[in-house]
Amino acid sequence: MRATTIHAPFDLRVEEVPDARVREPTDAVVRVVRACICGSDLWAYRGEAERQPGQRIGHEFLGVVEEAGHQVTGFAPGDLVVAPFVWSDGTCEFCVEGLQTSCPQGGFWGSPGSDGGQGEAVRVPFADATLVGLPAAALSDERLLTALLALSDVLGTGHHAALGAGVTKGSTVAVVGDGAVGLCGVLAARRLGAERIIALGRHRVRTDIARTFGATDVVAARGDEAVAAVRELTGGHGAHAVIEAVGTEESMRTAVGITRDGGAVGYVGVPHGSGTGLDLGVMFDRNIALRGGVAPVRAYIPELLPDVLDGTVDPSPVFDMTVGLDGVPEGYRAMDGRTALKVLVKP
Amino acid sequence: MRATTIHAPFDLRVEEVPDARVREPTDAVVRVVRACICGSDLWAYRGEAERQPGQRIGHEFLGVVEEAGHQVTGFAPGDLVVAPFVWSDGTCEFCVEGLQTSCPQGGFWGSPGSDGGQGEAVRVPFADATLVGLPAAALSDERLLTALLALSDVLGTGHHAALGAGVTKGSTVAVVGDGAVGLCGVLAARRLGAERIIALGRHRVRTDIARTFGATDVVAARGDEAVAAVRELTGGHGAHAVIEAVGTEESMRTAVGITRDGGAVGYVGVPHGSGTGLDLGVMFDRNIALRGGVAPVRAYIPELLPDVLDGTVDPSPVFDMTVGLDGVPEGYRAMDGRTALKVLVKP
Repeated sequence: MRATTIHAPFDLRVEEVPDARVREPTDAVVRVVRACICGSDLWAYRGEAERQPGQRIGHEFLGVVEEAGHQVTGFAPGDLVVAPFVWSDGTCEFCVEGLQTSCPQGGFWGSPGSDGGQGEAVRVPFADATLVGLPAAALSDERLLTALLALSDVLGTGHHAALGAGVTKGSTVAVVGDGAVGLCGVLAARRLGAERIIALGRHRVRTDIARTFGATDVVAARGDEAVAAVRELTGGHGAHAVIEAVGTEESMRTAVGITRDGGAVGYVGVPHGSGTGLDLGVMFDRNIALRGGVAPVRAYIPELLPDVLDGTVDPSPVFDMTVGLDGVPEGYRAMDGRTALKVLVKP
Repeated sequence: MRATTIHAPFDLRVEEVPDARVREPTDAVVRVVRACICGSDLWAYRGEAERQPGQRIGHEFLGVVEEAGHQVTGFAPGDLVVAPFVWSDGTCEFCVEGLQTSCPQGGFWGSPGSDGGQGEAVRVPFADATLVGLPAAALSDERLLTALLALSDVLGTGHHAALGAGVTKGSTVAVVGDGAVGLCGVLAARRLGAERIIALGRHRVRTDIARTFGATDVVAARGDEAVAAVRELTGGHGAHAVIEAVGTEESMRTAVGITRDGGAVGYVGVPHGSGTGLDLGVMFDRNIALRGGVAPVRAYIPELLPDVLDGTVDPSPVFDMTVGLDGVPEGYRAMDGRTALKVLVKP
């Protein structure tokens, strides 16, 4: 089969790799119908996260079960399924409590020895626990299929950020980051009943999507200027709930700066300097909490799925470019150059 | 009147200062019956927190109302009252929601221009909002009076840490720090229904108090050794709820290291390096939350008071040395040298 591999920074190849096949009786093989490129893939692409030469890449996909091991009881060939970005065994204490990202038997697609989502097929360990079934009818609904793909990562990650930030009915929320996760944070905050949602971003196309997703205000500034603007919008105090969806020192500093005393920063941007953006003295004096991390998306899919199916929540606008498998390297270039927001892959 | 002043690091004096008096109609003057020395006072004593020469010191006291401004309706001369370590107006949005430490009109005892607790009397701004009444009978009950004094800071601060750490019925809790706040954290965790409480500390006298307060296990180690020991006690995973009551880089690093994935660190140790003890990459991967800060003790007194009055919660054993006002400098020396845990002051 063919799949995307990464050999060095900026050196992605789409090449022949061993076919995905059932190795354990709990495995399934999923033929990828839709995949996509994540902002966090860019850390590897740019060499800021290390990869072994030839390692697979891509951790978001949905597809059709092609083969199922004999211990797989929940899925059969032909089933349409979505995979969260981490596989998990479904039986350990962490899985049972909904923190599948801490499953000792879990792992990330594209980690050494595993298939990546940006390829023709993926071997899925613990298929019964990992995969979530989707209605087959979605296969003929292009928009819905795209929206469902967001369940593999960005929508659940935005939801995790909103929960971490403590968004509830009536909250005032601010979102740092206008990438796909930040935008899904807006969507998740609206879904949780936020009354006011302030999106920070300087790219008009993106902030327009933010408005479509429920943002009531847009702050087109960064750093101190952004902090001042959000404070002005919130009676001087900042937002109760702040979503940090970037992971840099500046974005975290901004996030803390715009959080109201007693509020929380829900952070899901993979930390790349954001630790140094935390001024603990300020957070201490103002009782600002920090909650978040790698999102246990698997736990959220059952809750989010009905809203995506009935169209109440539609993250599909975050995908603004589509490529075939051969176009994956071009998709990375576009996202790296910020000419694309999020790239959909149709293998 | 006489009060303790700080002139330079290690230079404390008990000297004549202007009498405390009602300046605003909402003020009361409280004659101090009991005060004490806080671990956080040592930061000023050691010169690690700056003070103006001659500034007052001490932020924990209870006493008898001596004079009340004409707008004070809740208290009259002769009333026994306890003061939280921050005064607050009781009417702003932060006070209304129980975050009195963020009151724009609030302040700390001993800040420039205000009286400190380690003196004969204190002018209390916004007396109706700031003070909490106590039964006069406590005046003749030495143990109870001492226990009630802990409501001014350490007990409420321990409670804040326990809430920040997410302690609930059945929790497994670990407490970093065997000072008075850490010990009160043990007490608060037990009160909130923790099933298992692991106290970290290497001072036998203190860990014995921890056991009296409800600790089920004691780990007499620091750093990596402590992390390994707590993990061994908790099936390899660490504690759901961790109280950080020190504020140094090492203590925070230990706290994060012993927190179970998906758990939280409740931090109340005034940050003195603890920011650099936060490895955000580790916290991200393991979904460890950080909550806490300066405790809004005023909000907690009404909840904690009944349990102190009926003896269900008795923090009085944290006081292990008593001095008169002239003995305050000696009390600091004893706490600085760790020969005293917490010093009670009877002016």
